[in-house]
Amino acid sequence: MSVLTFPGMWAALLPVGRDDGTGGYRRFAWSRADHDLREWFAQEAQVRGLDLTEDRMGNQWAWWGNPDRDGPGLVFGSHLDSVPDGGAYDGPLGVVSAFAALDHLRDTGHQPDKPIAIANFVDEEGARFGIALAGSRVITGLLDADRARGLTDEDGVTMAEAMRAAGRDPAQIGQDPETLARVGTYVELHVEQGRALADLNAAVAIGTDIWPHGRWRIDLPGEANHAGTTRLQDRRDAVLSLAGVIQQTRSAAEQRGCLATIGKVRIEPGGVNAIASHATAWLDARGDNPEAVRGVIDDVTATTRALGGEVHEESWTPVTAFAPDLIAQLSRALPGAPTLGTGAGHDAGVLAQAGIPTAMLFVRNPTGVSHSPAEYAEEPDCLAGVEALATVAADLTGGSP
Amino acid sequence: MSVLTFPGMWAALLPVGRDDGTGGYRRFAWSRADHDLREWFAQEAQVRGLDLTEDRMGNQWAWWGNPDRDGPGLVFGSHLDSVPDGGAYDGPLGVVSAFAALDHLRDTGHQPDKPIAIANFVDEEGARFGIALAGSRVITGLLDADRARGLTDEDGVTMAEAMRAAGRDPAQIGQDPETLARVGTYVELHVEQGRALADLNAAVAIGTDIWPHGRWRIDLPGEANHAGTTRLQDRRDAVLSLAGVIQQTRSAAEQRGCLATIGKVRIEPGGVNAIASHATAWLDARGDNPEAVRGVIDDVTATTRALGGEVHEESWTPVTAFAPDLIAQLSRALPGAPTLGTGAGHDAGVLAQAGIPTAMLFVRNPTGVSHSPAEYAEEPDCLAGVEALATVAADLTGGSP
Repeated sequence: MSVLTFPGMWAALLPVGRDDGTGGYRRFAWSRADHDLREWFAQEAQVRGLDLTEDRMGNQWAWWGNPDRDGPGLVFGSHLDSVPDGGAYDGPLGVVSAFAALDHLRDTGHQPDKPIAIANFVDEEGARFGIALAGSRVITGLLDADRARGLTDEDGVTMAEAMRAAGRDPAQIGQDPETLARVGTYVELHVEQGRALADLNAAVAIGTDIWPHGRWRIDLPGEANHAGTTRLQDRRDAVLSLAGVIQQTRSAAEQRGCLATIGKVRIEPGGVNAIASHATAWLDARGDNPEAVRGVIDDVTATTRALGGEVHEESWTPVTAFAPDLIAQLSRALPGAPTLGTGAGHDAGVLAQAGIPTAMLFVRNPTGVSHSPAEYAEEPDCLAGVEALATVAADLTGGSP
Repeated sequence: MSVLTFPGMWAALLPVGRDDGTGGYRRFAWSRADHDLREWFAQEAQVRGLDLTEDRMGNQWAWWGNPDRDGPGLVFGSHLDSVPDGGAYDGPLGVVSAFAALDHLRDTGHQPDKPIAIANFVDEEGARFGIALAGSRVITGLLDADRARGLTDEDGVTMAEAMRAAGRDPAQIGQDPETLARVGTYVELHVEQGRALADLNAAVAIGTDIWPHGRWRIDLPGEANHAGTTRLQDRRDAVLSLAGVIQQTRSAAEQRGCLATIGKVRIEPGGVNAIASHATAWLDARGDNPEAVRGVIDDVTATTRALGGEVHEESWTPVTAFAPDLIAQLSRALPGAPTLGTGAGHDAGVLAQAGIPTAMLFVRNPTGVSHSPAEYAEEPDCLAGVEALATVAADLTGGSP
């Protein structure tokens, strides 16, 4: 296989939406940065002579071949938006690698027996409106169009208003079976968000499933009082309860072998000289074993109730298994590649839930850092990812590169 | 002594700035509620034929007699503003009781040998602009006028803009030695903010000093990462460090016998699925023994540094002792009244720092709850407070009621 390089694409993407202070990316849905990224995608499609279409939610599809005439095709893709102060690879690596793999297939004279496309899903991270995977969820019907339109960002701007400001008609959004019918197979390449591949000493893995995961809100009561005059023994301090729940959450996750995180808290009234009358914490828990995750929630609930508080489930998503036949075929095409489950959500999971044969490829992340400016992947591993995509494409579309 | 009642004053005050949802008060400096409270004060002065003056900061003074002609007088007073969702008594009890005590002195034919005044200090709580005791600090020079003008509220409104919107000229604010020269003695009556008097079974206490107190900012580092994919052992979670510091703060305060509170925290990036890259906590610590308070800070600093963080001192105020001669005279006038130090800041402390002979009276708070809608005092105890003020006034101005 020839040496694959794609410095040009990275050079164009790197400055878009980067915060000069943190070095991280702020590429939020329907923002100026998002617009520029979409223009970039359209340009990359155009220079390759691909047919650019947009579905009802604005997800972009660049087709080589005609899926309406020649049947459903193979789609690679990912997203270009980011979390606040996100890294350069989460999302873009999948899109850039897909273009590079397609270039390689063409350079080597591959004649696919079915159409091939590259997709850019909008609003994958949900950083602006609070709901992740909005692009794929709306077109598959997992997120109601009215609810999506009514979501608001920090400034109170609704998604409908943001779409209008970006020159789109929010009345158009909704389920899009016509678009989904064109997708025979979906494979999403993504930078790994942990260090499993680093430990396995492998550049690329095949994704098998998305772990069951959920989100809970923990409410802890206290009693408002003056920090300068209330004796310690007379206090009911919600912040002190919060500290206990944070530590209990961590030890329960350690004991049960899954992941649990408190990354957002709110203290009321929140004054420096005020004993807290209420603390709210949001708990994110995931793992390969749903019983273990449930066990952590049971432990935390018991602790919370003993402190007079309550735990509310905000969401729960069971395990999403990718297509076994497709995984088997990828394993044959990529001999030696390990298989890996993941705790992160991806559009691939949404498409799998919608019945599309779906799998993922992960590219080694030497530090495991993700959703951070420090996230990265080594260039040889990125090239190995492109090669894997090209190999898979050749295998799934009738030939070898 | 005759029965003292003052239901009319309370009835007029109770609705002003009360939040219908919480039942607590939101009486912030230079707001509409504050305006209405100042109008109420002016009206109470007028119906009594007192001379109303305002100093350069807008603190209100209602004089019975002429301090410029007859020498410095005795001043009672407190404040009418509140913390967010504050109670009805913190501040207003001192002002209402002062008017009631003056009424009683007049009803009983007392002829004071020096002028007597009632003061309403503006912006005591600092709820809007973040700096407590702004009214007394500006006129004594403890808070620089330029700094005060530039303080901003949550909406970015400066104190100067807020004063202008309230019809005042912020260029006028500053030190006011002429006003301070009129104050021969200052006695502030305040609802107790703890349960010491409840335990002592006494209605009124004499305040002896304001404890040393300070405020520290604790910065704890973490490493931003994805909550769904990062193994527990690979994490540097600032929220977990925060939990440890919260618990260490409490146990250090218990061991050393002082008060320490964390009531405000900030988590970055603060996403539900993001491991925290940074946590900031604000620590308020006070006690009757400055060495004990310093010891708590040393303990917390050691814990914080072990977690890679830093503790920054934002403020430190040594003990403020009230005037010993005045306390002795009050003790003679109010036989049996216990003496009490307090951990809360008061304008009385600022005036004492400025060299004015100052003391306080505290009225029993049966629950000790303060800065909360649940704060209260029994009516007989409030009446005992008025009686104590009247007795003190008679004693300090040459006669008995």
